[in-house]
Amino acid sequence: MVKAEDFTFRGLNKMGDTNNPVGSNVTQVNVNQLPGLNTFGISMVRIGYAPYGQNAPHTHPRATEILVVIEGSLLVGFVTSNTDNKLFTQRLEKGDVFVFPEGLIDFQQNVGHGNAVAIAALSSQNPGAITIANAVFGSDPKISDDILAKAFQVDKEVIDKIQSNF
Amino acid sequence: MVKAEDFTFRGLNKMGDTNNPVGSNVTQVNVNQLPGLNTFGISMVRIGYAPYGQNAPHTHPRATEILVVIEGSLLVGFVTSNTDNKLFTQRLEKGDVFVFPEGLIDFQQNVGHGNAVAIAALSSQNPGAITIANAVFGSDPKISDDILAKAFQVDKEVIDKIQSNF
Amino acid sequence: MVKAEDFTFRGLNKMGDTNNPVGSNVTQVNVNQLPGLNTFGISMVRIGYAPYGQNAPHTHPRATEILVVIEGSLLVGFVTSNTDNKLFTQRLEKGDVFVFPEGLIDFQQNVGHGNAVAIAALSSQNPGAITIANAVFGSDPKISDDILAKAFQVDKEVIDKIQSNF
Amino acid sequence: MVKAEDFTFRGLNKMGDTNNPVGSNVTQVNVNQLPGLNTFGISMVRIGYAPYGQNAPHTHPRATEILVVIEGSLLVGFVTSNTDNKLFTQRLEKGDVFVFPEGLIDFQQNVGHGNAVAIAALSSQNPGAITIANAVFGSDPKISDDILAKAFQVDKEVIDKIQSNF
Amino acid sequence: MVKAEDFTFRGLNKMGDTNNPVGSNVTQVNVNQLPGLNTFGISMVRIGYAPYGQNAPHTHPRATEILVVIEGSLLVGFVTSNTDNKLFTQRLEKGDVFVFPEGLIDFQQNVGHGNAVAIAALSSQNPGAITIANAVFGSDPKISDDILAKAFQVDKEVIDKIQSNF
Amino acid sequence: MVKAEDFTFRGLNKMGDTNNPVGSNVTQVNVNQLPGLNTFGISMVRIGYAPYGQNAPHTHPRATEILVVIEGSLLVGFVTSNTDNKLFTQRLEKGDVFVFPEGLIDFQQNVGHGNAVAIAALSSQNPGAITIANAVFGSDPKISDDILAKAFQVDKEVIDKIQSNF
Repeated sequence: MVKAEDFTFRGLNKMGDTNNPVGSNVTQVNVNQLPGLNTFGISMVRIGYAPYGQNAPHTHPRATEILVVIEGSLLVGFVTSNTDNKLFTQRLEKGDVFVFPEGLIDFQQNVGHGNAVAIAALSSQNPGAITIANAVFGSDPKISDDILAKAFQVDKEVIDKIQSNF
Repeated sequence: MVKAEDFTFRGLNKMGDTNNPVGSNVTQVNVNQLPGLNTFGISMVRIGYAPYGQNAPHTHPRATEILVVIEGSLLVGFVTSNTDNKLFTQRLEKGDVFVFPEGLIDFQQNVGHGNAVAIAALSSQNPGAITIANAVFGSDPKISDDILAKAFQVDKEVIDKIQSNF
Repeated sequence: MVKAEDFTFRGLNKMGDTNNPVGSNVTQVNVNQLPGLNTFGISMVRIGYAPYGQNAPHTHPRATEILVVIEGSLLVGFVTSNTDNKLFTQRLEKGDVFVFPEGLIDFQQNVGHGNAVAIAALSSQNPGAITIANAVFGSDPKISDDILAKAFQVDKEVIDKIQSNF
Repeated sequence: MVKAEDFTFRGLNKMGDTNNPVGSNVTQVNVNQLPGLNTFGISMVRIGYAPYGQNAPHTHPRATEILVVIEGSLLVGFVTSNTDNKLFTQRLEKGDVFVFPEGLIDFQQNVGHGNAVAIAALSSQNPGAITIANAVFGSDPKISDDILAKAFQVDKEVIDKIQSNF
Repeated sequence: MVKAEDFTFRGLNKMGDTNNPVGSNVTQVNVNQLPGLNTFGISMVRIGYAPYGQNAPHTHPRATEILVVIEGSLLVGFVTSNTDNKLFTQRLEKGDVFVFPEGLIDFQQNVGHGNAVAIAALSSQNPGAITIANAVFGSDPKISDDILAKAFQVDKEVIDKIQSNF
Repeated sequence: MVKAEDFTFRGLNKMGDTNNPVGSNVTQVNVNQLPGLNTFGISMVRIGYAPYGQNAPHTHPRATEILVVIEGSLLVGFVTSNTDNKLFTQRLEKGDVFVFPEGLIDFQQNVGHGNAVAIAALSSQNPGAITIANAVFGSDPKISDDILAKAFQVDKEVIDKIQSNF
């Protein structure tokens, strides 16, 4: 029996814990938290940013994202695919909206003086997220430093050092 | 040549004019306002509500909607399709989220003491909106009162009177 | 074990009971009646109309409809979405075909002298249907007359009266 | 400027010319005849059958079909894909409905005493149709009899003879 | 628990048994053999051809195919839908690629001196395949020779003879 | 006028130039090279790998990939999305097939003694590709080292050094 509660999620106004290396926090409202989204191809997130915090470069493998700034100032950007790899950025203030196309690497950085808050919607009920640094250097098990040294064109020691952070 | 501005819309924090019979205002950010949304199946709106205002019963013919309350208190609801026509409602406070399934008749009413504001996302870059009262009683030209009197099971005079309001 | 019967429905030539306030009857052949339609995105209905009968204003939340008149004469129409709310109508005779775009409010009225019959197909195996008057004024529980009075711009007494019919 | 006529097609009640080798005629109402179907994923056909006529084995490469008998009696059938190639058939009378799944080889044969008529809808605005005998033996230019002799496991002379009919 | 093996299929380099009337063999790698393809809308096949062998005229009811020649020389072709039934053919050598649009009748014939091998991908995780001769003349049970004689415009004896081969 | 050449691409057997930092080369056959793929949701690539070469970690933002080894030995892998970031790997020999789910970071490394060759198909006619190192450290203009230092948790000097390679 479906009921109104299945279509309701409460508390997206609450700041998550941003006391972490990147200084941000994402609260997800997708089909895992809100079963009423099932089959509907849409979901929502709140992103809180501490001063100097960022939502580090990441992709959503199954969704385009539309984001609106609720509080503070953000530098936002995404990089187009091969072989141009063009970086598109904008500075957003409260009430400004930006689109991150499906699957592209994108980020947001708090460039104001206090906390910043954004609400974003994604075009999938289960969009997924891949934080690039974590997936590349912090996978379980690790990708061999052999592969990453060649990909990033640095010595294995540099790779090993970055991997040790994750 | 695509540029960052094509993915940007500014000013969704501004209250639209709610000085109208239903006491609300919708600011749309779909592919018509934000060309970067093209082919991506998502869009956004801001809804402002004066005290006692409402977003009157309406449908989105091509999208499911997920809404979050930014300010104030809302009574939200939708009616399921034939033949149950079950009404699902919830009272939402700041930070609460609700889902309106594709094509169903839904509404929001400001039940707080001041203005209310919601941000909502829709699962289409061009979701459309049909305000029931306006489409049924205010179409151009009018639907004949003959048809509406039988549909709503009232005298034609009642239909004529409602039609005269639109 | 799938068998030929799973792809068969019998008796769509039979007139349903049109002895009701709107004077029409819809026989549905969707995935609930015909399991062979599963995953195929199509279904069918037969609509019978008594003299002066109508298929009252309604929407299909998940489908476009294509209708052909088998017998009699119909006035058909649909209303476009906000903010134009333009009414498109046509008079159809036997053998005439009309399209009702997905999610728009549409209706058919018997404008001939005898019964009328139409066959229509819908672009979903489970298209749903929302009869506007029933969903708005006859939901369970009722939508508050406060909301509807403002939406339809009439006194609550008018709303209460219409609600009492459903 | 869109207008009501764009959503209208007239005359699907008329019998097409069935004076041809297979004794049937298909009147199409797809996006080529009815522009209002554009993007909506649905279309319609009328099929008329002379006595002993058939709608010869064919496929619709982009659509599932749902058919209702308007007049007469039909034997209908389709064959499942490799390697079962199971034939599913039914005898349909007036008002009976049958589903032909997307891409499968299907046919209808008039098994009554007079003309038969069916209305069918297809889950594409441009479903296409491939009459097997015509495409295999009557293509322009011809498929080499070398290939067809091996495929049908008969002498080239048999192939040449069938090809000469198309 | 998903594991790497769910995304792996081994042995597509092996020649299947081509000792059959058409002199070819198809090894399928779709969701039935490779569960990791589930929901992803793609699959693969290897086709081996003996000298003079062919992949007889067939359709894929739910997929477009892109094929690359790994070894040998192939004549490939497809026939467009009604009413043109135009045959498009090409001779392919090692490394050449060809596209067979969804649902159209297509074939490949080994026109080199030794074996030929192709790898093809299909735009469905479960594309299906219908070998025309087998489905039309070898279904279980048989399509009546009455129907096929009229469709192919030959005597029933010819039909009976072809049917007896399958 | 469509013709057979529109469905043909020649020369996918040729080794591209692998004399580059990662020791591999991708030849694309998507809708840009092969117009006959338009609207069909599928495309193909050939990947050549020098000894010790790799197809560096990358994503396809709009497609799942299915790959078969034509020659040589490959270590292949992908990393699941947040927060597990599980690495799935397999060693593939000639004839082995592997699936890379849509949007996930994946790679292949030549682990044999000579060149390696793979053919892969993708579930989009225009799948796109994002080589992680190039997009993150080699975009135009660069992402600020401020952002990347925090994301990868290293000093800006390390970021500057990696950026200088691209």
